[in-house]
Amino acid sequence: MSTDPRAGDAAKYVDPEIMAELLTMRSSIDNIDAALVHLLAERFKATQRVGVLKAEHKLPPADPGREKAQIERLKRLAAEAHLDPDFAEKFLNFIIEEVIRHHHAISEHPPQDSDPGAPFDWASQD
Amino acid sequence: MSTDPRAGDAAKYVDPEIMAELLTMRSSIDNIDAALVHLLAERFKATQRVGVLKAEHKLPPADPGREKAQIERLKRLAAEAHLDPDFAEKFLNFIIEEVIRHHHAISEHPPQDSDPGAPFDWASQD
Repeated sequence: MSTDPRAGDAAKYVDPEIMAELLTMRSSIDNIDAALVHLLAERFKATQRVGVLKAEHKLPPADPGREKAQIERLKRLAAEAHLDPDFAEKFLNFIIEEVIRHHHAISEHPPQDSDPGAPFDWASQD
Repeated sequence: MSTDPRAGDAAKYVDPEIMAELLTMRSSIDNIDAALVHLLAERFKATQRVGVLKAEHKLPPADPGREKAQIERLKRLAAEAHLDPDFAEKFLNFIIEEVIRHHHAISEHPPQDSDPGAPFDWASQD
């Protein structure tokens, strides 16, 4: 039986040849997931800085005009990449919900400095 | 007034200097979002291939052991990247929900060929 952690429960009942193919694909998926997590970390660092800027200048966290432009652009990029455009919109909304949720912390407790390595506390829709 | 589509509604009431800073940050966020969309497209191409493989060999779409290992790994990577580990878990669940939803199409209507450029129809949790 495979001891590769990517094998999951499948190793118990899958033909070794098929299992090898499955592991190759899972390895690519895991690489993509690591890249996604690191990009999301960068994105939240950026929205954190925007959140601080907006809090300092008393700007509203949400910007419907900006959000509309983002959704249209991402749907277009998704279609070009053969990704379901509706899923791209759902994905952006999922991210924005999270950053708006975190933004309230900035309005309620403005940061004392803008340390870019600060934990995931200050953010903004953006 | 700025005609940059990234300005959104903020251009109507923000000081031009602050607006310039906001636009610089939004430009980085837009670059990150384009990268995220393209990585997601690649991820769904991979789960689409896994979905076809699983359907051909009558394997269940979900694999709880694999999923548990993925979540643990992503939470560890997230913590290292200063991203909220609970958000990383929510994000993975969001993606997996979508791929399982699409996987049912494979079981119900197996593909006639495995064209990697096929639309977003065949996928699998993975």
